Amino acid sequence: MLFKQVYDYLLERIQRGEWSEDEKLPSVRSLSAELHVHRLTVFKAYQMLKNNNKVYVKDKQGYYIQTGAVMPFHSLQDPIVLASVQGSSLSEIHDVKVDYQFSKALLDPNLLPNHYFAEYAKKVFDLYPKVLGTYSTIQGDQELREALTRYFTEKYRFYITADELLVTSGSQQAIDLVARALVRSRDIVLVEQPTYSPAIDVFTRLGARMIPVEIHPHGYDLDQVEMLMQQFKPRLFYMNPTFHNPTGYTIPAEQRKRLVELAQTYRCLIMEDDPYRDIYFGEKPPFPLFTYDTAGYVIYIRSFSKYVAPGLGISIAVCRPAVMRELLRAKSISDSGTPLLSQKIFLHYFFSERMQQHLVKLRIALEVRKEIMEEALSDTGWSWESPQGGFNLWIRLPDHVQMEKLLETSIANSITFVPGYIFDSFKGFRSWIRLSYAYLNEQQLREGMRRFISLVPAPSGLLEASQ
Amino acid sequence: MLFKQVYDYLLERIQRGEWSEDEKLPSVRSLSAELHVHRLTVFKAYQMLKNNNKVYVKDKQGYYIQTGAVMPFHSLQDPIVLASVQGSSLSEIHDVKVDYQFSKALLDPNLLPNHYFAEYAKKVFDLYPKVLGTYSTIQGDQELREALTRYFTEKYRFYITADELLVTSGSQQAIDLVARALVRSRDIVLVEQPTYSPAIDVFTRLGARMIPVEIHPHGYDLDQVEMLMQQFKPRLFYMNPTFHNPTGYTIPAEQRKRLVELAQTYRCLIMEDDPYRDIYFGEKPPFPLFTYDTAGYVIYIRSFSKYVAPGLGISIAVCRPAVMRELLRAKSISDSGTPLLSQKIFLHYFFSERMQQHLVKLRIALEVRKEIMEEALSDTGWSWESPQGGFNLWIRLPDHVQMEKLLETSIANSITFVPGYIFDSFKGFRSWIRLSYAYLNEQQLREGMRRFISLVPAPSGLLEASQ
Repeated sequence: MLFKQVYDYLLERIQRGEWSEDEKLPSVRSLSAELHVHRLTVFKAYQMLKNNNKVYVKDKQGYYIQTGAVMPFHSLQDPIVLASVQGSSLSEIHDVKVDYQFSKALLDPNLLPNHYFAEYAKKVFDLYPKVLGTYSTIQGDQELREALTRYFTEKYRFYITADELLVTSGSQQAIDLVARALVRSRDIVLVEQPTYSPAIDVFTRLGARMIPVEIHPHGYDLDQVEMLMQQFKPRLFYMNPTFHNPTGYTIPAEQRKRLVELAQTYRCLIMEDDPYRDIYFGEKPPFPLFTYDTAGYVIYIRSFSKYVAPGLGISIAVCRPAVMRELLRAKSISDSGTPLLSQKIFLHYFFSERMQQHLVKLRIALEVRKEIMEEALSDTGWSWESPQGGFNLWIRLPDHVQMEKLLETSIANSITFVPGYIFDSFKGFRSWIRLSYAYLNEQQLREGMRRFISLVPAPSGLLEASQ
Repeated sequence: MLFKQVYDYLLERIQRGEWSEDEKLPSVRSLSAELHVHRLTVFKAYQMLKNNNKVYVKDKQGYYIQTGAVMPFHSLQDPIVLASVQGSSLSEIHDVKVDYQFSKALLDPNLLPNHYFAEYAKKVFDLYPKVLGTYSTIQGDQELREALTRYFTEKYRFYITADELLVTSGSQQAIDLVARALVRSRDIVLVEQPTYSPAIDVFTRLGARMIPVEIHPHGYDLDQVEMLMQQFKPRLFYMNPTFHNPTGYTIPAEQRKRLVELAQTYRCLIMEDDPYRDIYFGEKPPFPLFTYDTAGYVIYIRSFSKYVAPGLGISIAVCRPAVMRELLRAKSISDSGTPLLSQKIFLHYFFSERMQQHLVKLRIALEVRKEIMEEALSDTGWSWESPQGGFNLWIRLPDHVQMEKLLETSIANSITFVPGYIFDSFKGFRSWIRLSYAYLNEQQLREGMRRFISLVPAPSGLLEASQ
């Protein structure tokens, strides 16, 4: 049980008025026994309650309820809880502030040319003096869509028009819009196993039924994919075929062509999520599935947040008109269009000479960081497939490692990572973890890895024995 | 039938392959007869298809299917259409480009101090050099949330903490998040009659059942509200009690207190949408309902897009922790947080001296525009309640006016307005219209109103007789 769950549990009891203001809370020891969790977990939950002004500490005697922590009216709980759904555990891990952040697949802001970027951004106000006073259209800025249309057509042979391109507020919104527009409760959705966990949250929330498709270093088992499509008539296959998150695997070109044929044959739409395409270390990755799709079955999602500008949150969905109509409806319900300012800044920066130069440097910097992480791991005996792009290592730890305990110990040592089961709707991959090498600098990477490796118990179970 | 519907209908038939490339389409006359719509409507739909490269004109002989307009694979249609929901007719009207835009409740960009605003925005890059490289948290920038917490507490006696405030990408997202977090299929939702139509779209999409609550110049009928709450146990009451859109009415303070009591008694959450509060012409409006709520039943939504910066799209949702937890989950599924850049620019601009001075001028400018519109209407004999704030007039036209026809004629004369039935989930208010006075300058307002009034047929029905 993670401390965040204990925190939520205690917060709810406090707000419900189970203790009154200035009343003493149970001791760490007794609560630990009551909840069957480690004392450290309770301790950290109490510390977080203290940080959030829900409890206070008095003379080292224990924890007391803070004034104002109890909700004035208690009956509110039930109607809310009724509508509750399972939260995203990934964002809970991400919310913890630590020194060694291996959990977020997020670029180190120091790797971005912040100064030049700001100069470009400032120019936008001179080019478009009324940009702050103007709404974007729902579909996105025409000038940006036209520039991206040319870009995708030249680079990936998409042959689209600007009407087939939607600007979204980050790829999370794009995934959510596609799902809301096309998936209904009880629809079958194919997802990779493992897969990007916020996508699991989106499909879960819609009441879709997910069927996992295993992803291996050299692709899917296409016979399995065909069998699943034939047997279950899935509405959608959500995939991340290039430098896949969390594994780093890439689906080869021949499989891409065949997947598009299968989608067409079995009328299964494909949502192709492609945030890491530009972060390759060796050869360029194969063309997107969208390139091979002549029948309108592929919806292509491309985030630019990962490496252009997280602070702008610009992503793109590309699809044919019949699907676009549905996406536009979903978008108009979700917001009134992505902010025009973000779109204009992105437009002028992304297509600049500077950005293209920067990208070359960025790939080198990330490859170096990947190699540092791999070097640190070289004596552990753990196994992983060295990725040819992306931000992450997908690592198999020895089977005896208890993942929840390792996560707890890591957080206590100011380190975060993501346990493998978070990437699986069936909660498998109990021995796997994802470590991201994109956020920390080289020195921090070395030190963080040294510390992390020392926390993983040897097979004899030294750490476990000590408890 | 609007020309956009005819356009969509034709586009679908074209893409489905009903005609082959270079085949001639039916004549305007025959299609007009087939669809029972005016010839002008068909003509405009054809023009739009031409503009979008779906058809071409040959030797004045008629319209022909453009190469590439037919979708290569036709079976795509059915799975898509299955998932289709009713689109937002409001956004369809808004999409039409005209000279006299009375339909959008949107501020004229020339009324914003664009130059000063851009200067503030540029400073943000110096203050936060890495702002473009940094994600916001899901809940929103801490500095902004703290500033807004002080603002709401000082101005409206909210007494909240920064944890009880969520930054959203516009009020449309806030409404959508609250609905997704709290409303399930077949839940009962109270909505004002008339109400903000994109909210109808949100509830419709979730499969909620809407019950209308009439809004009058001096408030609701509270006996009716209580009866509805008692009888139907609604989950939520979505309201816009201050300078209500479209009517401009404001719920008096006594009713606000009583509504909060009713919400508590019948456990009905209230979503209080409050985008027009700062645009008052006389006295300040009464406090929000949230001010009177001690039990956590009110969720307060405040958009700043309307008058601070449409190009940033910053809105706020304020609620107590139990509801906030659900909103945060919905937000983390919808996107990865509102872009940090927008939040930082908003922070520095909104709390500036300049902004507060600007607001005084803005109120005067809008009141002048309102008066110009009312003066133009003074000889028509139409009826309306003069609003004390907001962007809109809600006007009753003579009963004989056929609204679809008037809209069509207006668009043909480069004028848009919003028919009343769009604001009603039961499609009533057939004689009412909303005219917004916020977008056009004084001269355009006078000329546009002169033209519009001349299009509304006199009771004898001259225009109708001519057809």
